[in-house]
Amino acid sequence: MARQRTKTFIISLLVILGLLTIFTTAAWAGDPTGANSAGINSVAAAKAGAPTLEEVATDLGKTKIGLNFVWVILSGCLIFFFQAGFALVETGFTRAKNAMHTMAMNLMVFLVGTIGFFIAGFAFMFGGVGSVASLGGTEPLNGTLSIGGWNLLGLKGFFLNSGGTYDVGVFALFFFQMVFMDTTVTIPTGSMAERVKFSAVVIASFFISIIAYPFYGNWVWGGGWLAQLGSKLGLGHGVVDFAGSGVVHAMGGALALAGTLVLGPRIGKFKKDGTPVAIPGHDIPIAILGTIILFFGWFVFNAASTLNGADLRLAVVATNTMLAGAFGGFTAMMYMWARYGKPDPSMMCNGALAGLVAITAPCAFVSGVSAAIIGIVAGILVCVAVYVIEHKFKIDDPVGAIAVHMVNGFWGLIAVGLFADGTYGDGLNGVAGGVTGLFYGGGFGQLAAQLIAIGVITVWGTGVGYIFYKALDKVIGIRVPAADEINGLDTPEMGVKAYPDFVLNASHPVAAGSVSAPVEAKGI
Amino acid sequence: MARQRTKTFIISLLVILGLLTIFTTAAWAGDPTGANSAGINSVAAAKAGAPTLEEVATDLGKTKIGLNFVWVILSGCLIFFFQAGFALVETGFTRAKNAMHTMAMNLMVFLVGTIGFFIAGFAFMFGGVGSVASLGGTEPLNGTLSIGGWNLLGLKGFFLNSGGTYDVGVFALFFFQMVFMDTTVTIPTGSMAERVKFSAVVIASFFISIIAYPFYGNWVWGGGWLAQLGSKLGLGHGVVDFAGSGVVHAMGGALALAGTLVLGPRIGKFKKDGTPVAIPGHDIPIAILGTIILFFGWFVFNAASTLNGADLRLAVVATNTMLAGAFGGFTAMMYMWARYGKPDPSMMCNGALAGLVAITAPCAFVSGVSAAIIGIVAGILVCVAVYVIEHKFKIDDPVGAIAVHMVNGFWGLIAVGLFADGTYGDGLNGVAGGVTGLFYGGGFGQLAAQLIAIGVITVWGTGVGYIFYKALDKVIGIRVPAADEINGLDTPEMGVKAYPDFVLNASHPVAAGSVSAPVEAKGI
Amino acid sequence: MARQRTKTFIISLLVILGLLTIFTTAAWAGDPTGANSAGINSVAAAKAGAPTLEEVATDLGKTKIGLNFVWVILSGCLIFFFQAGFALVETGFTRAKNAMHTMAMNLMVFLVGTIGFFIAGFAFMFGGVGSVASLGGTEPLNGTLSIGGWNLLGLKGFFLNSGGTYDVGVFALFFFQMVFMDTTVTIPTGSMAERVKFSAVVIASFFISIIAYPFYGNWVWGGGWLAQLGSKLGLGHGVVDFAGSGVVHAMGGALALAGTLVLGPRIGKFKKDGTPVAIPGHDIPIAILGTIILFFGWFVFNAASTLNGADLRLAVVATNTMLAGAFGGFTAMMYMWARYGKPDPSMMCNGALAGLVAITAPCAFVSGVSAAIIGIVAGILVCVAVYVIEHKFKIDDPVGAIAVHMVNGFWGLIAVGLFADGTYGDGLNGVAGGVTGLFYGGGFGQLAAQLIAIGVITVWGTGVGYIFYKALDKVIGIRVPAADEINGLDTPEMGVKAYPDFVLNASHPVAAGSVSAPVEAKGI
Repeated sequence: MARQRTKTFIISLLVILGLLTIFTTAAWAGDPTGANSAGINSVAAAKAGAPTLEEVATDLGKTKIGLNFVWVILSGCLIFFFQAGFALVETGFTRAKNAMHTMAMNLMVFLVGTIGFFIAGFAFMFGGVGSVASLGGTEPLNGTLSIGGWNLLGLKGFFLNSGGTYDVGVFALFFFQMVFMDTTVTIPTGSMAERVKFSAVVIASFFISIIAYPFYGNWVWGGGWLAQLGSKLGLGHGVVDFAGSGVVHAMGGALALAGTLVLGPRIGKFKKDGTPVAIPGHDIPIAILGTIILFFGWFVFNAASTLNGADLRLAVVATNTMLAGAFGGFTAMMYMWARYGKPDPSMMCNGALAGLVAITAPCAFVSGVSAAIIGIVAGILVCVAVYVIEHKFKIDDPVGAIAVHMVNGFWGLIAVGLFADGTYGDGLNGVAGGVTGLFYGGGFGQLAAQLIAIGVITVWGTGVGYIFYKALDKVIGIRVPAADEINGLDTPEMGVKAYPDFVLNASHPVAAGSVSAPVEAKGI
Repeated sequence: MARQRTKTFIISLLVILGLLTIFTTAAWAGDPTGANSAGINSVAAAKAGAPTLEEVATDLGKTKIGLNFVWVILSGCLIFFFQAGFALVETGFTRAKNAMHTMAMNLMVFLVGTIGFFIAGFAFMFGGVGSVASLGGTEPLNGTLSIGGWNLLGLKGFFLNSGGTYDVGVFALFFFQMVFMDTTVTIPTGSMAERVKFSAVVIASFFISIIAYPFYGNWVWGGGWLAQLGSKLGLGHGVVDFAGSGVVHAMGGALALAGTLVLGPRIGKFKKDGTPVAIPGHDIPIAILGTIILFFGWFVFNAASTLNGADLRLAVVATNTMLAGAFGGFTAMMYMWARYGKPDPSMMCNGALAGLVAITAPCAFVSGVSAAIIGIVAGILVCVAVYVIEHKFKIDDPVGAIAVHMVNGFWGLIAVGLFADGTYGDGLNGVAGGVTGLFYGGGFGQLAAQLIAIGVITVWGTGVGYIFYKALDKVIGIRVPAADEINGLDTPEMGVKAYPDFVLNASHPVAAGSVSAPVEAKGI
Repeated sequence: MARQRTKTFIISLLVILGLLTIFTTAAWAGDPTGANSAGINSVAAAKAGAPTLEEVATDLGKTKIGLNFVWVILSGCLIFFFQAGFALVETGFTRAKNAMHTMAMNLMVFLVGTIGFFIAGFAFMFGGVGSVASLGGTEPLNGTLSIGGWNLLGLKGFFLNSGGTYDVGVFALFFFQMVFMDTTVTIPTGSMAERVKFSAVVIASFFISIIAYPFYGNWVWGGGWLAQLGSKLGLGHGVVDFAGSGVVHAMGGALALAGTLVLGPRIGKFKKDGTPVAIPGHDIPIAILGTIILFFGWFVFNAASTLNGADLRLAVVATNTMLAGAFGGFTAMMYMWARYGKPDPSMMCNGALAGLVAITAPCAFVSGVSAAIIGIVAGILVCVAVYVIEHKFKIDDPVGAIAVHMVNGFWGLIAVGLFADGTYGDGLNGVAGGVTGLFYGGGFGQLAAQLIAIGVITVWGTGVGYIFYKALDKVIGIRVPAADEINGLDTPEMGVKAYPDFVLNASHPVAAGSVSAPVEAKGI
């Protein structure tokens, strides 16, 4: 029978190859290289006579904006994919009994975040940005709340409809900025995983997407007071944060810290004497997959922040991102290998992410070698920070989000003030000349602005965030009951188990759903 | 020894940092911002004297088409990635014992679909479309079968070779349309999973890619009779379906329904009294990953359907897609939470997908707020439809594909007839003026055309599809033997288990491969 | 209570829909189609008077280069994602006890590869390429080591800084080429998995990224002696390898073969009489996911190798890639089905990958039908090669990388010499006229050049690679101790288990971590 099938296969194959050969030898009358098609479709072809210079110039203007739209929308898609990266990293680094809960949070925050940003977050952040010339340049985003010449908040773009904001340029900006905001909303879910109530995260995600993220975002990217520090007070170019080491990552990390402080550690995380207990994640391979996905999106997270496909500096940005991430991951791997004798895969991931977070602010302003140095420092910093946060501060951050996003977000802001080499940023925030840091003769002005940003993130993100989470805890309670935590959050919170067909390991410390007492009590 | 390693690490680090510092302080002679490089490479640089206006206009025409090619090909890649999304959603929502079979079907349908579309599907669908101006505009696709002025089928492009179709514009169109077709081919595999024969799906995939999808596709997108309803009978712009709520999704859902009706439910799905039994999927986290991947691709599934990177409306399309998906997922989550007390993760996924399916037809013709409303309705509709299909019609659709793709595909077609606001679509299908629905003063003409489309999909997709599956069942049998279904399809159908190293849960209802009797008999 | 919640849900819904309706009926003053915004932002708008023709031409030149940057950087991101594809394919095809090790290797090689390419690999490969006109055209990459007019090695671009290489065009080229190199570095990890030391792979990755890949790469793509075979000796266009069937894939496969020969087979792979034992992978669904990811990236791996978004031939390239991959996968599936009675999912993957590898060199030079034929041959070739390598040569290649990448990489090189149809490649490597193979009247010149490439890859990749691995083995030992291999590499090598919460199947041959004796001894 195998012989019969093989015979049939061979005959079929010969018939198919014969047919294909007939077609491939047919005469061609098409345009296989585009030589004919390429010349048409310009304004020249669209009218009878010769085009005028003005018509050609206008047509070119349209094409340029089209290029920027293609750049921004395609990059926005790749950045949206961060959502998958965070979901996998956080789920992989936590336990099987909470996998459904962790994964579902990561999908939910995107749904909620989009809605919050659509209702008001976008308007608060960019409502006073005027127009983005590279996205078409009509000026519907002209509403700002200012006090004494200092801008505090945007006021146009609610529901993408207020005041003439049903506009292609506004929609393009919304799409791109929405996926940035989304990153900040999703960072705290990692630190708060395995004990936070799903309902609390729903409400917190509205808070972050409408208030926490857009307000600070307005101050730096929406033309607000932190961006004005340069033109008004002479502090370099004001706060410079190209793609959001501070706006996106440090803010996410600061909110994660706030949430974690209010929640407290997981049951079993610290022994009675305060010694931390390692709680291994249940699927490290998918956490690595998540890291690769984040790396994948990060190139354009940074590069497309030019909002301009013809700003060729984007190639430097993308390459610097690659270098800092690679050096960060490699350095963390070697650090752990040197210190503990094995190349810890989790810290390879966190080292790479730390390098990426750190390069996010300076990526456009530094050389490749500086990017490498920034990545090396980030790789060491994240290893030290993870240790200190857990062992000294006794804070339980299951995925290391505070060390990765807050600590290295701050490092990225500082790095701008040190490594910016003056080749880029002329006119940024209304200040002439390239952004220049301390090491390249720029003095302390830029560095001072960056340090102010760090202070504001700490106060606004961790301070106000703490008040928010504390208030939420009073009203609805943000932590699940201890029994649910011990047995796993999936059934009580979500009504569904993640892996119903697989046998889970009850003997593994606090892994499976059948443990009946806190692990602490076992003296592990 | 750890101290020794740490020492080595620190010394290495200092050496590396020192080396890097030497390089970073070196003088630069390059072009770090592109200021020098950017001006060259125009036609101006390519010849000795000054360029003529005609040369510049021609060069601009080439550049514009290049932009469209980049837009369409890159978007086509992201849409191809749907294949991964469907594979994960379908595999995650089914049982571990069938994981290999479900996953392999999702890879296979792409292989077969490409071949079928290459041989004849593409020619049937687009062979009479003339030229796509934005893709270069030579006109090899000029063969149509018409009766009485009504176009019924295309006839050029077989093997991408007939009649001068070895042409860059034709290849670009093929690449982009192939990944759309592929979606329709893969939708039925979800509804028919866990009991259909692999060989039957191979044959059905040829049928869908050569006949079922391209014929209806020609009628709407290939200049066929449904597109002519506007210019010939005055029904609005004829059937309007921007990116395929009907052509792609409802057709896929209609074929899924046909296949499911012929196959019947899985063993154990309904008790003797007809009560449905929940059969949980084996890996919901990867189903969520799949949903995020689909979301990721959907932005450009819709936006790149402009086939034109300089049609700035693409930003509205992408943002509407985001809004409808987010509101759909959020609404479904709240609906389930309100009704059953928990935020069902599966319905978060299906709600988001329902919103995405529903916005696919109207995405280019409506405002952001309308997109939100369309998404909210889709989110409720999918929850109700899943319930009704299972509890009232007793149809077993393991992944909810009929509710997601067919029901919400229909809703998307209707939504065009209601929410289209007249700002876009001038000249579409040869009708002047923007597409306008009932709520914006367009009267019932457009809505009537959309309802005709729904009727045709039902007759062609479910009707003809039913006849096809029934005939196939007579000839080769499309359902696996009961014993194979109970023990799992992986070994008998594929010869390989999905997870040979993991212990599966035999006590879980019909989960593992060792159950020896239908679950029904256990009275679950 | 459910009724209470439902009531709340319905009331909320009505309120939200009411609010949205208010907004959607508001008057619009924006620019919803881009009609107003599109015309501005050209040079015409940027100055007071009318633009001159020269200004317009210069502006067009900038836009064209911007398009190429967007094309190359976005495509580079998708190609980077290969890393995820290889990680999943290799991890899925190996055993659970080694999953952490296999996955971590795939992340690590990217980190190390980036660093090696940054330090010197890029400079060796492209340091003498002159300028890439489509990326801006300044000429910093002007350092070449030549002997007698034959170019042997590039010498500019160390640390992206030497000799004026802090340049946007250089950074863009680095970014794009880095992700190609990365593929070659990652291929050997699959063949050497489950027994190689992690530390050995770290060192080997530096070797490949600095020496093995860039040297041969320079000879073909950097203007080196193999590219000169056409202009100097009249062998067609010299070695033609559009996107790297040889440079990337066959070289990766040749190095994989070298490593595997030095390592030897896994314990238990061959019985004492030499009969091979099948060792099933632990998660075939994620291996299929990995295959889909590779497919996803491959479209632009090939198409973006134009480095020019306005070279419309890129559509032919992308479509040919799709066709060859689909025909390859389908043919391998049918071959296995005919021969062994089941459609082997692993060979569906490997068949698709084989088709993709084979089309990588000829993709730009052949018609769609030829691409289909190339894919069909690849699909059969890979099935035969996997069998022969394992059964005849007794080489243990856990993922089939040698059959996929080396054998089909060679087939791709040969296919150029057979199927190139003369429509493309005018001026390539300084030779006038299109690249033309034997079947299209090109004679044996091109084929001869391709065969020389195959010889060089074998000598340089497998020969020099063998010497390298052998030397490394002498110095540090490249294979883990037998006990570690039997118990799984994750704990001894990485210090972390991949799936600590899941119960693994100890009864499965050499699957779980508890087997205490070589499987061989069990006589399996």
